[in-house]
Amino acid sequence: MIAKLGIIVEDQKFQTFITILIVLNAIALGLETNINIMNLIGKELIIFDKLVLSIFTIEIFIKIINQRSSFFKNGWNIFDFIIVGIALVPSSGPLSVLRALRIFRAMRLLSVVPSMRKVVQALFFALPGIFSVGSIILLIFYVSSVLTTNFFGAEFDEWFGSVGKSMYSLFQIMTLESWSMGIVRPVMIVYPLAWVFFVPFILITSFAVLNLFIGIIVDAMQQQNSDNGQEQSNTLLEELVKTQQTVNALRQDINRIKKRLEN
Amino acid sequence: MIAKLGIIVEDQKFQTFITILIVLNAIALGLETNINIMNLIGKELIIFDKLVLSIFTIEIFIKIINQRSSFFKNGWNIFDFIIVGIALVPSSGPLSVLRALRIFRAMRLLSVVPSMRKVVQALFFALPGIFSVGSIILLIFYVSSVLTTNFFGAEFDEWFGSVGKSMYSLFQIMTLESWSMGIVRPVMIVYPLAWVFFVPFILITSFAVLNLFIGIIVDAMQQQNSDNGQEQSNTLLEELVKTQQTVNALRQDINRIKKRLEN
Amino acid sequence: MIAKLGIIVEDQKFQTFITILIVLNAIALGLETNINIMNLIGKELIIFDKLVLSIFTIEIFIKIINQRSSFFKNGWNIFDFIIVGIALVPSSGPLSVLRALRIFRAMRLLSVVPSMRKVVQALFFALPGIFSVGSIILLIFYVSSVLTTNFFGAEFDEWFGSVGKSMYSLFQIMTLESWSMGIVRPVMIVYPLAWVFFVPFILITSFAVLNLFIGIIVDAMQQQNSDNGQEQSNTLLEELVKTQQTVNALRQDINRIKKRLEN
Amino acid sequence: MIAKLGIIVEDQKFQTFITILIVLNAIALGLETNINIMNLIGKELIIFDKLVLSIFTIEIFIKIINQRSSFFKNGWNIFDFIIVGIALVPSSGPLSVLRALRIFRAMRLLSVVPSMRKVVQALFFALPGIFSVGSIILLIFYVSSVLTTNFFGAEFDEWFGSVGKSMYSLFQIMTLESWSMGIVRPVMIVYPLAWVFFVPFILITSFAVLNLFIGIIVDAMQQQNSDNGQEQSNTLLEELVKTQQTVNALRQDINRIKKRLEN
Repeated sequence: MIAKLGIIVEDQKFQTFITILIVLNAIALGLETNINIMNLIGKELIIFDKLVLSIFTIEIFIKIINQRSSFFKNGWNIFDFIIVGIALVPSSGPLSVLRALRIFRAMRLLSVVPSMRKVVQALFFALPGIFSVGSIILLIFYVSSVLTTNFFGAEFDEWFGSVGKSMYSLFQIMTLESWSMGIVRPVMIVYPLAWVFFVPFILITSFAVLNLFIGIIVDAMQQQNSDNGQEQSNTLLEELVKTQQTVNALRQDINRIKKRLEN
Repeated sequence: MIAKLGIIVEDQKFQTFITILIVLNAIALGLETNINIMNLIGKELIIFDKLVLSIFTIEIFIKIINQRSSFFKNGWNIFDFIIVGIALVPSSGPLSVLRALRIFRAMRLLSVVPSMRKVVQALFFALPGIFSVGSIILLIFYVSSVLTTNFFGAEFDEWFGSVGKSMYSLFQIMTLESWSMGIVRPVMIVYPLAWVFFVPFILITSFAVLNLFIGIIVDAMQQQNSDNGQEQSNTLLEELVKTQQTVNALRQDINRIKKRLEN
Repeated sequence: MIAKLGIIVEDQKFQTFITILIVLNAIALGLETNINIMNLIGKELIIFDKLVLSIFTIEIFIKIINQRSSFFKNGWNIFDFIIVGIALVPSSGPLSVLRALRIFRAMRLLSVVPSMRKVVQALFFALPGIFSVGSIILLIFYVSSVLTTNFFGAEFDEWFGSVGKSMYSLFQIMTLESWSMGIVRPVMIVYPLAWVFFVPFILITSFAVLNLFIGIIVDAMQQQNSDNGQEQSNTLLEELVKTQQTVNALRQDINRIKKRLEN
Repeated sequence: MIAKLGIIVEDQKFQTFITILIVLNAIALGLETNINIMNLIGKELIIFDKLVLSIFTIEIFIKIINQRSSFFKNGWNIFDFIIVGIALVPSSGPLSVLRALRIFRAMRLLSVVPSMRKVVQALFFALPGIFSVGSIILLIFYVSSVLTTNFFGAEFDEWFGSVGKSMYSLFQIMTLESWSMGIVRPVMIVYPLAWVFFVPFILITSFAVLNLFIGIIVDAMQQQNSDNGQEQSNTLLEELVKTQQTVNALRQDINRIKKRLEN
């Protein structure tokens, strides 16, 4: 019977039903943020939310029983499992923050809609290419934040009071948000040479982030180009091989003539 | 007679005349925003505006009669129709806002000037490639705005008081405008861990938008490259086929020799 | 004699001398902005400036006499002519602003240093590709600025009081500088629906500017790729033609054999 | 004995040990910024720091003795030498700022971890391509800063009081940070035509920086494409050469037949 349910659950129509449920649930959770709507149909929204959560839980339960250990080998299943799991934790007391995380269930769309699923997978494939440049950027950030904490921490506690505060401020500076008017100009009133650190920091991190981007673009393009060129050069290669075969057949013909002449 | 008018209307010279009218009309509508100029030649500008509108209306009227049902199959015709149509709606009372929309008539340049028309069409061709990444960004925005409304809505009503306000604020944060000094730092005074949400939000949306861009670039380049490479590999293929034909002709020659020898 | 001077002026060594003069002159004009340095060696700096200007004037004078009408056919010569010419205009009274423009003489480096000259020429080659997208962006700007003047001009005179002010403010918004906190949020207090205009404006102009960039990138890359691929496919083509020639020679050999057998 | 130590020092396991030391040292220097941790285990951290520095010094000392003059031919060795050298300078009195630079030792990770090393080398390879565009941007900056000092220096001493201040302000404007609300709008109150300088400045520097980026992207891609295409066209070329050899062999066969027939 579980096998039958398993087939139903993996069915195309059922997936469409789940997709609609996810969208409706997301809308309902959006409506819940409005106090007037809550006063009107708050109870209904909460009941609907519990209903949807039940269906999701049963769906995943059936999938786990059906696929057994292979269920957890698929990253998307783990993604669904965690998202639904969060909603099942009793969200009272210190864990009340989890209640707000219910909206993450809308993220299930990423795993259920095929076109979105494909894009997310492509994004994940781009990640390894970022790793080395990313770790260099992290290193620059760490070194810079220890430096700024030592240099400016005493005078500008709010921005550079600790390594953590410095990292946040340097992230802000890297995004160029209010870096000069908001942070560096005030710092330069006390330390007039502060620009010696901040201007190169901006140039270097921009250059590094740029190289991160270029790496991704070049990777993406190289793959497509090589697929493309490969196909064309394969067509040429096939034709060339055919020509060779004809020439070889020709050579055998001539050899046969030679032998006949020798006899 | 309509057919004759149709030919005139579609004529190159008439299109140049229309182009000039659009430009003059745009300038006139720009001048109308200046109160001094309105006091001087306001009446003339309004008469000119009505004259231009009449010409545009007649032009489209002739086109519709001439092309009939096929008129509305062309997106550019519908574009012209709506833009001129807006100007015909009586712009008084609650619809007075439509008066200001008359300037959209200048947008007819996009449909009348061939080089602009080509660029706009290219932009539209790029749109489908954005669709899946675009919908993921929308999903991230919706989930994030429900989250921020739940988390920060009570304390920061102006920025995160409703899902709509949150979406606007998150759009501002995504453009990096005053995200830290203006929004996240004030929020962190009340919720010191707010950066746990906002920093990843910026990183993820930047990464997603970047992938949107890369997708468009790679698409554009792939098409050109494949056109390009295709041409070159076609030249090679043609030469290769010629070689094969020569070799085959050779083989037939030799077969004839063989047969002659056998006789 | 002029011909001899012409040869000297176009000589490599003389160009190096001019390059050094340009750099020294630029430094001198930089020093002139400092009042302490002016008190110390102000007279010497002004004399040096006049000396350099004289040399530049004589250089161009010789070039004009030597090359005659062909002098003005070269864009770089016109560039040099205008830059030196500006400095010769008496810079007193209402034209005193021209005095400050003397520093533009440093721009002669662009025409004198070959590597810079090459880059500037490459930038100019990229310009036509921008033209159509650029004119569309201009059109969007004009239409938007007339719209914002009509909509928000009365209430926000400083930002949208005239078409000119609107264009400047929209340019600021397009660069994303303080667009929300500085302009759109204040406007939304009076017109709560203002985001309906500004958010799409940002999306559309960003998309258009992005396409401007992509156009340039794709153009640059396509040229290099096609050069590249052309070379490789030419090598292949040459080899293929050689093969064909060998096969044809072979065919003639066989035909001779055939004739011999027939006899 | 030194030779033996040299082999140990260049060993894979020793390099891993050094990598761990660098990371631990970086964490320790981070902890030193926190006053509470310093009160607790400050002495231990300082002893650990000295220990690590000693190991680094001995490592480099052995390397120098072992590799002799060839040591300083490797850029990475010089990089390590300077970073460790900084830490050996007595950091008291006027040089106390060097104490804070100890964290630069964490940068040794760039030379020790192979994947990071590769990325940094790639970044350096990208530098020459930037050189000519970079020097043009510098020229634009210098000319612009002399201009703004002359034009706005008297009224806006804080931003444009000297060439140095102007360069910093123009760098801020180029990064688009508060360029309009923070700087250009206030300047336009005194000089209403200031936008005539600043808007083109933003457009030109953005265009130049964009071309810097495009240059790097195109370079990176061209290299990969040519590697890629080269490989494919090499495969084709090899096959083509094989075909030619077969055809040539064939020709010799036929020539032998011809000779035999002639006899």
